[in-house]
Parts: sequence; structure tokens; C-alpha cells
Amino acid sequence: MVATTKFDFEEFVASKRMLVDAHLAEYLATGTPEVLYESMRYSVLSPGKRIRALLCLAAAQAIDEDAHRVALPCACAIEMIHAMSLIHDDLPALDNDDIRRGKPTNHKVFGEAIALLAGDALLMLAMETIANHIPSSIDKSIVVKVISELARATGAPGMVGGQVDDIAFTGGKLPADKLTMLNSIHLRKTGSLIRFSTWSGATLAGASQEQQNNFAAFGEILGLAFQITDDLLDVTGSAETLGKTPGKDAEANKLTFVAIEGIDKSKAKLVDLQREAETALAKTGVSKQSLIYLESLLQMAINRVS
Amino acid sequence: MVATTKFDFEEFVASKRMLVDAHLAEYLATGTPEVLYESMRYSVLSPGKRIRALLCLAAAQAIDEDAHRVALPCACAIEMIHAMSLIHDDLPALDNDDIRRGKPTNHKVFGEAIALLAGDALLMLAMETIANHIPSSIDKSIVVKVISELARATGAPGMVGGQVDDIAFTGGKLPADKLTMLNSIHLRKTGSLIRFSTWSGATLAGASQEQQNNFAAFGEILGLAFQITDDLLDVTGSAETLGKTPGKDAEANKLTFVAIEGIDKSKAKLVDLQREAETALAKTGVSKQSLIYLESLLQMAINRVS
Repeated sequence: MVATTKFDFEEFVASKRMLVDAHLAEYLATGTPEVLYESMRYSVLSPGKRIRALLCLAAAQAIDEDAHRVALPCACAIEMIHAMSLIHDDLPALDNDDIRRGKPTNHKVFGEAIALLAGDALLMLAMETIANHIPSSIDKSIVVKVISELARATGAPGMVGGQVDDIAFTGGKLPADKLTMLNSIHLRKTGSLIRFSTWSGATLAGASQEQQNNFAAFGEILGLAFQITDDLLDVTGSAETLGKTPGKDAEANKLTFVAIEGIDKSKAKLVDLQREAETALAKTGVSKQSLIYLESLLQMAINRVS
Repeated sequence: MVATTKFDFEEFVASKRMLVDAHLAEYLATGTPEVLYESMRYSVLSPGKRIRALLCLAAAQAIDEDAHRVALPCACAIEMIHAMSLIHDDLPALDNDDIRRGKPTNHKVFGEAIALLAGDALLMLAMETIANHIPSSIDKSIVVKVISELARATGAPGMVGGQVDDIAFTGGKLPADKLTMLNSIHLRKTGSLIRFSTWSGATLAGASQEQQNNFAAFGEILGLAFQITDDLLDVTGSAETLGKTPGKDAEANKLTFVAIEGIDKSKAKLVDLQREAETALAKTGVSKQSLIYLESLLQMAINRVS
């Protein structure tokens, strides 16, 4: 049974990644100016784990076995937003990173002007992809809701707002309750897009309002778990396993879970989060069997540091 | 008759500007991080001509006297996109401008990181505003279409793409047919958002497909006219009338209509464009009286340099 499940999960990950990559390539295939599309493709089509897309598709399939096709344009839009956030974060005005996923960052290849504009263009292409490519079987009021939620998850109430808080508190004036601030930063900076991933997949597949809330909660908790594993890996990982330079957080005097709580307490927090995430999944009322891919994605996240 | 019309137009401009400003202030009123919203407000609420919003509202009213309320969220979204484009364009990675509308540019006040992120947040807030604030009387399929068209007008197929071409050909390798390239740059860089302004106003007000096309054509032509007047003003204007440093185009060896064609031919081109724009309006089949505000906005654009 375990062997079969493992096989299924690997097959799920491989086949869905291929599906996502193929559709991303199609959405980014043609267009002028050529250099702009090259820059967009460079970051979006760079080999990635596609965790957010997989979460969106797994949530959709949990509700309806065949709904991954319905959720596919949304899964691709999420990957565009994620790629865009990396391009802008890597710019000299922000993190000033030269290497990303083991390759030169976008602005190192295309220059700062093109990298900045490629990020802007990807934000718009993500919206266009949802507006134009979600199948017509989905009610347009749901499409509008998905666009609204993605705009919030990405913009000031979500990712961008978290990034601003992160800048404000990195190496600067720390608040009295550092842990609360850090939770708030991560819920926005990485959590909101992961929350959107599971919420949108379930919603497009026809989840009830209560199910939508529980899939959203699962994503939010998973997002925090990812952040803590990232913080841990920055301390314990190598450049090879990370695809980027380790130790950068400490060097930048960055506010991280590990910096505040230490390695052991951070690992204990991960165990708590795993339990919370499983509770949220159980509350969806969906069968254990249908949730297997989401469970496995959670396990995969935790396994990175154990 | 002329006096009455003039009075009406001034009243239209003043009242609609106030309406747009009030709604923009409301959409940007609250939110954290405070510094991010301050930065967004700094650029969006800075006193501006609101030409794009006025065009959207005037096109809506041309179709249906009362439709300006329906089009208002879209008009505000357009102004957010316009403000965002100025913030990113002014960054050191692009035009590196210190002064905009007579005030320090966004990054001069808030720093490059916040300015970059405020631009990203405004792109998302524009989408959220359309998704959430267009009245429920409008069919959701039209809302989705408006979002899709705004994403195209703003992204790689529109404004951002034009900006990339502009960078590629400024002070660099010029193409054989400079005028064709310049037209193409401007149709995207400034034309596409102005085209969207008139198209979306008419569409939200219930215009037929053919009317939509003609309102779009009018906006596109008007966008070119604006660009030529801008180019002319850069040569003939003062810092006071421009709100920015004149002569920057020539200094940057920028490809402009005036640089290629000279002042006289550029002025003759404006006359041609005015005729084309009036033809597009006539083709909408809407009464002369209903088109009076759009006609007046066209005249206002041309008058800037005559």
C-alpha cells in the first residue's frame, strides 16, 4: 500500500509538472518585443518544483477527480506570479541576488530595466490567463472572484505587503513581539499565494464555502511550514541542495524563525503546523483517499528538513 | 451656444475629476503596511489631469447618460495603472527621473524598493477594483472581458511592451523605418491604455460591438495625438507648463516624432489625426450632442500645442 501510494504520488507530481510546464510554455510562446518574452520565459520556464501549481491541482482533484483541467490556467497563473515575485525580489533595489535556482538571476542576464518590466508583464499575463483560459463551464462570477482573490493575495494585502514589512524589519528597528511580526510577514509574503493556490483549486472544482475556507486554511498553514523549512535550510543546507547561497539570512541579519527561536524550537513548530494542516484537511469532509496528494505535498514540505 | 458648451465641458471636467479623486482616495484609504499605502497614495492622489479617467467616463456617457457611475471603478483602475507606470518609468533602472508633475518622484521620497513594490501593488489594486466594484448590474462576462483587455493593454502586448521597445531604440540601434517603429512604440506605450479607456467606458455602458470598435479606434488615434503634443511640448514648452524638465528627449537622443519629422510636419500630423479621430467618432452612430465631451477632450489635447 505504501509502495503504491508513493508511486502514485511520484506519477502525480511528474505528470502534473509536465502539464503545467507545457501550458506555461504555450502561454509564453509568442509575442513581441522578443527580448521581453525571452526574459519572461527565462524565469517562468526555468525548471522549478511547481509546488504552488501542484497544490492548486491537488486541491481541485480532491474535490473532483477531473477538475485539474479546469484549474490548470489558474495553476499556471500562480506560477507566473511566483516567478515574477522572484524577479523583482532579486533586483538590486531589493535583495540584490545574483543567483537563483543555480542560474544567474533575470536582471543579471537581461538587465534591470527588462527584468523590472518582465515582472510587470507577468503580473498582467497571469490575470489575462485566468480571464481568458478558464473553461467556459465555470461561471463567470467565480472567475471574477478568483481574479479578485489573486489580486489580493499578490498585492498590498498579501505578498507585496509582506515584502514591504520584511524590508522594514530586516536589519532595522525590531518590534517588541518579533514572533508575531514574523508570522504576519510570512502569512503575507509567502503564505497568501500558497493559501490562494489551495483555495482556488478547490473553488474552481466546485467546493462548498466551508470547504473553500478549510482548503484556504490548509494552504496558509502549509505556507508557514515552507517558510520555516526555508529558514532551517538556510542554516543547515548547502548551496548545492538550495540552488542559492546559504547563510544569506544570517548575513543580512534577517528576521527568521531560526534566528528568533533556534533550530530545535523551529523543528518543533513544524510538527505543530503539520498537525494543524491535517486538521484543516480533515475538516473539508473529503475522503482520505481524495486528499492523498495534498497530504503527500505536506509531507514533502516537512521532509525537506527532517 | 459655444459659451454654453464651454461651460458644460468645464463643469464636466471639474465634477468628474472630483468624483474620480474621491473614489481613488477611498480605494486607497486604508491598509498596511502604512508606508506602502503612503507611497501608493503619493503617486495616485497627486493632482493630475485624469485624462484617461475622463475619456472612460465621457465614452460611457456618450452611450448612456447615466453610465458614468457604472464606469467609475474602471476609470479609477486606469488611473492606478497610469500612476504605476510613471512610478516604474521614473526608477533609476528606467528613465531615472527626479521630478514628476513638479514634485519629487516616488522613489526619491520612499526609496527604490518601496516605489518598485508600490507599482506592483497598484497593478493588483487596479484589477481588484474592477473585479469588486463594478456594479452587479453589469454581466460578469463583461467584467471578465474588461479585466482581460486591461491586462493586455497594460502588459507585454501593450504598455510594458512599448516601454521595452522604447528602451531598445533610445540612443541605440535605429531601425530603417524609424517612423513605423515610433508609431508602433507609441500605439503600445501610451496608446493602448488610452484606447482601453474609451473602449471600456463604451463597453460598460452597453455599446454594440461595432460601437466598441469605433470608440477603441478613437482612443488609439487620440493616444498618438497626445504623444505628438508631448513630443512637441518637450521642444517648445517650459518646465513650468510641463511640470517636468523640458529638452530631456533630445538630451537622451530619444526617438520622437519631432526628432524624425520636425516641428511643422508633426503639427500637420496632428491635424490629420484630429480628422481621423472625428471620423471614428462619427462612425459610432452616436448623436453629436452625446459625443460633445469626447470631442472637447480631443480638442483640449490638440490645443495644448496650438
